[in-house]
Formats: sequence, structure tokens, C-alpha cells
Amino acid sequence: MKKFAVILSGSGVYDGSEIHEATLTMLAIMKNGASYEIFAPDINQHHVINHLTGSEMNETRNVLVESARIARGKIKNLQEYNPQNFHALIMPGGFGAAKNLSNFAFKGADCSVNQDVENAIVSTYKAGKPIGALCIAPVILAKVIEKAKITIGSEEGPANAVEQMGATHQNTTHGEVVYDTVNNLFTTPCYMLDANILQIDEGANNVVKAMLEKM
Amino acid sequence: MKKFAVILSGSGVYDGSEIHEATLTMLAIMKNGASYEIFAPDINQHHVINHLTGSEMNETRNVLVESARIARGKIKNLQEYNPQNFHALIMPGGFGAAKNLSNFAFKGADCSVNQDVENAIVSTYKAGKPIGALCIAPVILAKVIEKAKITIGSEEGPANAVEQMGATHQNTTHGEVVYDTVNNLFTTPCYMLDANILQIDEGANNVVKAMLEKM
Repeated sequence: MKKFAVILSGSGVYDGSEIHEATLTMLAIMKNGASYEIFAPDINQHHVINHLTGSEMNETRNVLVESARIARGKIKNLQEYNPQNFHALIMPGGFGAAKNLSNFAFKGADCSVNQDVENAIVSTYKAGKPIGALCIAPVILAKVIEKAKITIGSEEGPANAVEQMGATHQNTTHGEVVYDTVNNLFTTPCYMLDANILQIDEGANNVVKAMLEKM
Repeated sequence: MKKFAVILSGSGVYDGSEIHEATLTMLAIMKNGASYEIFAPDINQHHVINHLTGSEMNETRNVLVESARIARGKIKNLQEYNPQNFHALIMPGGFGAAKNLSNFAFKGADCSVNQDVENAIVSTYKAGKPIGALCIAPVILAKVIEKAKITIGSEEGPANAVEQMGATHQNTTHGEVVYDTVNNLFTTPCYMLDANILQIDEGANNVVKAMLEKM
């Protein structure tokens, strides 16, 4: 049975993992006959957003602890990740990918990536195993993997930032998957587009299926 | 198009809505050609649980604000709910149903139900519209609707508490739906059983489909 490692970045679209993308990625993995383990870095979130008002809250929350909400407690510190134990790595989106796993939301093309996340990606890449990313999470691949080809939807601003990092951006619409054949990367736009939950289910399923077909 | 009202109780299985059940209920509603709006009561959670360790945290969180994480901000105060605008009401599970929407987790058969939640259920019931509930959430129906017939899985302790409230409990396994033909209630066990995410998808889909067939 093929096994995925899933990296989460908190729990909630505006400061963590997008909850539908994370849940539907897990569903897609099992629906396609594979299994998964969940990881997150043990770091504080960049900030905490009140998802009702959009305002910042005067609180501190930890990425691993909040990601455990989506994982129902079955989650490990990302430092424990070893690509030898998995067939593939996948990152759902949400602002957590651009605020916690990296600082793309604030620095754009000049962003840096959390060291544990970079180690996980680079070790998986060097092991020749596929890496998937949804929504905004592909920007992390654009930063870490030289000359990556990815999609984060069809908005010009973010796409330009991706190209400034030396990556190639391909515009996509709902459910489409960009496959970087050179680097073995699989990306799909999900909520980077104005999408509903059915379209997220389709995108998550398509990216997981595409990865499994190339294993 | 048939429209569901979904009541959430926070965001995370141990102190709020179970995230997979909430997400997959929303997916099931759209997959079956219907639409939804999301509601939650504007009250503090009973407590906050660290989902990594299981320990209580010295924090206060609000049920409506945290539920907004699952709803991506598109959520209303439950006091705004009016059954005239909907065809059905549904409640995903998670301990939030037994700690925030009611206090069944602490009081068992002697529990009380949050007034906004009780108003929503009673007004929907009196309008003759179907009410669905997943996992532990059916205990709220057992308390509020006289002589309800429900399921919360197959564990003897919780089932006995349901019967002490004057309801009838029917044992079920994965994906099964109990239909109370007298009271128009639809319940399914989900994570009250030792389940995986595929089985939650099946349960959520079955309960939503059964409700739509009776509308």
C-alpha cells in the first residue's frame, strides 16, 4: 500500500491549513487505496486570525498543536519525518503555508521557508519521490526546488512572484493538475480560485490520483 | 434547490465540531445537489483541549469564532436561524455537541441543551422539516424531541443514557442511518465507532441522501 506524508500548517484558512483542503486530501488518499501519516512543524503560528471578523487576535497558537485538530491527535513533529518511510509527500493549502511554513504572504518572491519544511521537501526530492501541493502551498516548492513548474491558479500577482523565484507558473482552473515531469511535482489551485467544496474535492482527488499513477 | 442549515459547535473533535464530519457533511450536501448555510451559537466553549496531548489548556475560545474556521468565515449566529428559510437542519458531531451545544458529556441523561440550539431544533421540528445528526450529536435530539428514535453507535453506556432520556436507541455500524419516521429524524454513528475518514464520508453521504429522499 502506498503511503503519503501530509504536512499541515495549523487549522483554519486565514492562519493555518485550509480545513476542507486538508480533510479532502486525506479522503482522496484513502479513496484511491493509499494511506497517510500527518506531520506539522512544532513552531508558533505567525499570528491568530478571528475567522469571523478577519481581525488579528491577541493570542499565540502552535502549528503542531492546532494541526492536531484536523488530525484528531494522530500527528507527529515534522522533524520525525523520514522519506524512506513514505512513497510521497503532500501539502494542502491555506494561509498557514504562506505564513507559518514560509513567509510568502509577507515577503513574496523574497520569502524564506521553515527549515523543517525545507528539509522534508529536499530529502523527498532527492529520494526521487513525488511531492504534491494544493492552493498556495506550491509557492514553497517554487522557492525550494530549482526551476520548479507549478500552478497557484490564475491570478497575475502571485504568478509573477512565482516566476521571480525562478520557477515557471502555469495558469489553471478548477480541478486541473500541473505535473512537473523533471522534478516530479504535482500542483492544483483549489481555493486560490473562487471555488466551492465540490471543486476542492475534485482538485484534491485529481492531484492524489496523478501522484499515484506516477509511483 | 433544497437548502440545509448546518449547526457547528467549534472546530476540533475534543472541544468542538469534529472537522471531518463537518467538512464531509458540507460536501455531501453539495454532492447531492443541495446547498447549505452554517450557524453556531455565540457562546464560549466549555473548555479548550490541546489536541496533541489531550490536556485542558488555560484559554477561552468562542464557539461561533472557532466554527468560522471550518466555515471559512461564512457563518451566522444561530439566533438568526429561521426554519422558514431552510428545508432541513443537520448537526455534525464532535465533543462540542456534548460540551458546548449541550452538557451531555458531563451530565449524561440529566443534561441540558443550549437555548439557541433547542429553539432551532424545536422550531424545525414544529415546521415538519427533517433534522439530521451525526456521531454524538443525536443525544441532543433525544433530549429535546419527546420519544425520539436515534443512534449513537453501539456502545452500551451512551446508549443507556439515551434510553434514560425517554428516547429509543438503535445500535448501528458504519454508514447506517436510523430514520425516526414519527419525528422525521435521521441519525448515523460516524466517529462514535472506531472509524476511518472513508467511513465518515459514507455516513455523512447516507444521512444527507436519506433526508433529501424524504423532503
